[in-house]
Amino acid sequence: MMTTKTKTTIHKIGNFVGQEVTLQGWLANSRSSGSVQFLMIRDGTGFIQGIVAKNELLPEVFQLAHSLNQESSLEVTGIVREEKRAPGGYELTIKNLKLIGSSENYPITPKEHGIDFLMENRHLWFRSQRQQAILKIRHEIIKAIRDYLDSQGFVLVDAPILTPSACEGTTNLFEVQYFEDKAYLTQSGQLYMEAAAMALGKVYCFGPTFRAEKSKTRRHLTEFWMVEPEMAFCHLEDSLQTQEGMVSFIVSRVLENRKKELEYLKRDISKLEKIIPPFPRISYDESLEILKKKGLNPVWGNDFGGTDETILTEQFEKPIFVTHFPMACKAFYMKQDPVRPELAVCADLLAPEGYGEIIGGGQREEDLGLLEARMERMKMEKEPYQWYLDLRRFGTVPHGGFGLGIERTVSWICGLEHVREAIPFARTLYRIYP
Amino acid sequence: MMTTKTKTTIHKIGNFVGQEVTLQGWLANSRSSGSVQFLMIRDGTGFIQGIVAKNELLPEVFQLAHSLNQESSLEVTGIVREEKRAPGGYELTIKNLKLIGSSENYPITPKEHGIDFLMENRHLWFRSQRQQAILKIRHEIIKAIRDYLDSQGFVLVDAPILTPSACEGTTNLFEVQYFEDKAYLTQSGQLYMEAAAMALGKVYCFGPTFRAEKSKTRRHLTEFWMVEPEMAFCHLEDSLQTQEGMVSFIVSRVLENRKKELEYLKRDISKLEKIIPPFPRISYDESLEILKKKGLNPVWGNDFGGTDETILTEQFEKPIFVTHFPMACKAFYMKQDPVRPELAVCADLLAPEGYGEIIGGGQREEDLGLLEARMERMKMEKEPYQWYLDLRRFGTVPHGGFGLGIERTVSWICGLEHVREAIPFARTLYRIYP
Repeated sequence: MMTTKTKTTIHKIGNFVGQEVTLQGWLANSRSSGSVQFLMIRDGTGFIQGIVAKNELLPEVFQLAHSLNQESSLEVTGIVREEKRAPGGYELTIKNLKLIGSSENYPITPKEHGIDFLMENRHLWFRSQRQQAILKIRHEIIKAIRDYLDSQGFVLVDAPILTPSACEGTTNLFEVQYFEDKAYLTQSGQLYMEAAAMALGKVYCFGPTFRAEKSKTRRHLTEFWMVEPEMAFCHLEDSLQTQEGMVSFIVSRVLENRKKELEYLKRDISKLEKIIPPFPRISYDESLEILKKKGLNPVWGNDFGGTDETILTEQFEKPIFVTHFPMACKAFYMKQDPVRPELAVCADLLAPEGYGEIIGGGQREEDLGLLEARMERMKMEKEPYQWYLDLRRFGTVPHGGFGLGIERTVSWICGLEHVREAIPFARTLYRIYP
Repeated sequence: MMTTKTKTTIHKIGNFVGQEVTLQGWLANSRSSGSVQFLMIRDGTGFIQGIVAKNELLPEVFQLAHSLNQESSLEVTGIVREEKRAPGGYELTIKNLKLIGSSENYPITPKEHGIDFLMENRHLWFRSQRQQAILKIRHEIIKAIRDYLDSQGFVLVDAPILTPSACEGTTNLFEVQYFEDKAYLTQSGQLYMEAAAMALGKVYCFGPTFRAEKSKTRRHLTEFWMVEPEMAFCHLEDSLQTQEGMVSFIVSRVLENRKKELEYLKRDISKLEKIIPPFPRISYDESLEILKKKGLNPVWGNDFGGTDETILTEQFEKPIFVTHFPMACKAFYMKQDPVRPELAVCADLLAPEGYGEIIGGGQREEDLGLLEARMERMKMEKEPYQWYLDLRRFGTVPHGGFGLGIERTVSWICGLEHVREAIPFARTLYRIYP
């Protein structure tokens, strides 16, 4: 048989069956059965098992393979074989092997480790197959969001991170010393997107946002990513259709391109296959009725807690829009309902299976007088918002939008217990390392 | 003639020639010639001239058109006509017109305004055609970068913004109060990308970065966006090929999809059409020779200044790689040249036409001993970098990457004087509003 020696990567190995190839990667794991060594090699694009047979190799090569520690980096040359029982469908019969970088006492062994230890070693932890699967799905989700919005004519307008004033109160803000002044890390790009929508019609920002909340729940990070589309000449229902279009597009892309990763995470794919528009729309008032029927005792005017969201979403197979919350639950910029002024023209999107809120959104108050009156009632300083009020002074229009939290969406689609695995380097109340 | 009334947007208006359509937008400008009003209408997707003829309309509609101020928001209904002399190739003969939001004393008039005034009114300024063109090209550039890297098998790994330690010294860092601790805003995601490359092979981060520099040059912002690809098993030349591939792909996408915007900006397109790989590679030493021939007196060991970069790039029609700078100019993590240890295995990419550095990059020191010795010589604290040193302890490999500054790239491709127009909301030494 004629062989050609080619440098390749694991995800392309199926193109080289019967041929000799060279791979560069790391040793994820190994086991021995006397005269045969099994090396599990990873290179970022995939994992493959390499077979090292004593009687087919130079003794020093077999000895090297035997002595390799977990996470050594190496270059291997071998013949690609089809092998239906192997995880990726292929195996490599190793002919030669070269150590590139050694590895002594790699801290994350195949045994179980506590979460604090893993988070402390996050820089190494995401070499694991599970963490790689999550990161690749996160990438797919982010790409799907951008592709969807771009295909719908939205223009990306990056919002600033350093802001002079607070969008929703100063309590949960991180303060930055900005030369001689104080600045704050953004909690949301929305107000800026409203300005941009008046210029470009349909816009979005996509970046990190910050909340200095002392929450330790499985849904909270201090630094998290949000996409925030905003549309001029937009009413609530237009926004809901964009949301259900986008969310179902994300899920379909992940199912199309990342099925292997979902399977590795043991995600119940049949649940994701049900995420097809339209999504149910229920009002806040109707939600309270559902909660009451389930034995809870919700109080009109309060926002939902985690338990409320869990119980509500368990009633549906799809994400649900909860619309028309009491104004008192919502931020100053929300539009009040013209018929029932105690309600906001808004909607949250709750993910199924108990994952809770992944989107908050609504129409914004476009009337200058109503907005100013509300700011006065809430005792807000108006000076820092003059630019925002300008949007109502110069050609105001009905407009609205929403913000989708990336880590909560990744958690839901991957089926994670905690958002800390849904971001490469989680920042929480007690963690800012590495 | 049968007409159908359809709601549409200006960029799609060519599909409705001879038909009646409804548009929603703002009045960008207007002029009158007695019995005819010319309304320049914009809706974010484009600009179109609407014709209001006195003798074809109800008197109150003509009177309304006459009284409209700049930036009023409105809904217009009219017949689409092909008109070769019109900017977009079409005009609208207006049949009806409805005011949505009024506009009194809009501050940005067609006359000239000073840059401070425009920056103070940034939330309104980007309603102008020039600013919209820049923002759309920025969007196209960012999309092209992501599409290029994704097509080459890179995985997006978002780097953290809040970091516990300094990547290149603390002098230019913004400090954040992080609950009981201090944190810093990231200057670069690179160190984190090195960790991610050891897991996923080829990765990139794309996000805001921060430098608390007291620079007031036309190339400096305190908050700017960077894309930072990093590759395992990568040598300098591999990285240069990725860079020239990516940069030429960006330019070709902008030429393909945003020619109208480039023309509006009066960009010399013939200069952009020359951006085709390969790009020239010249060493730092050769660069000094060129500068000397041009009458300058550069000192070996110093980094380039703005003037040096301008003169160097004026010698070439394409971007140029300047390689192998003195180690003393570069950060602690750069790999030293095995043959000439006073040099770093690195390259900057300088854009033509005097735009200067848009990329910095190189190979990273993969040898634990050399890296630790350098940190000691530079009197760096090693404790905060233990996780980074771990990458050399557990299967180290040759690796490298680069960082491309988005605003400098936008400035170059758009042909801007100053980077402050290349980002939606610029942050500079004296500006953090709006």
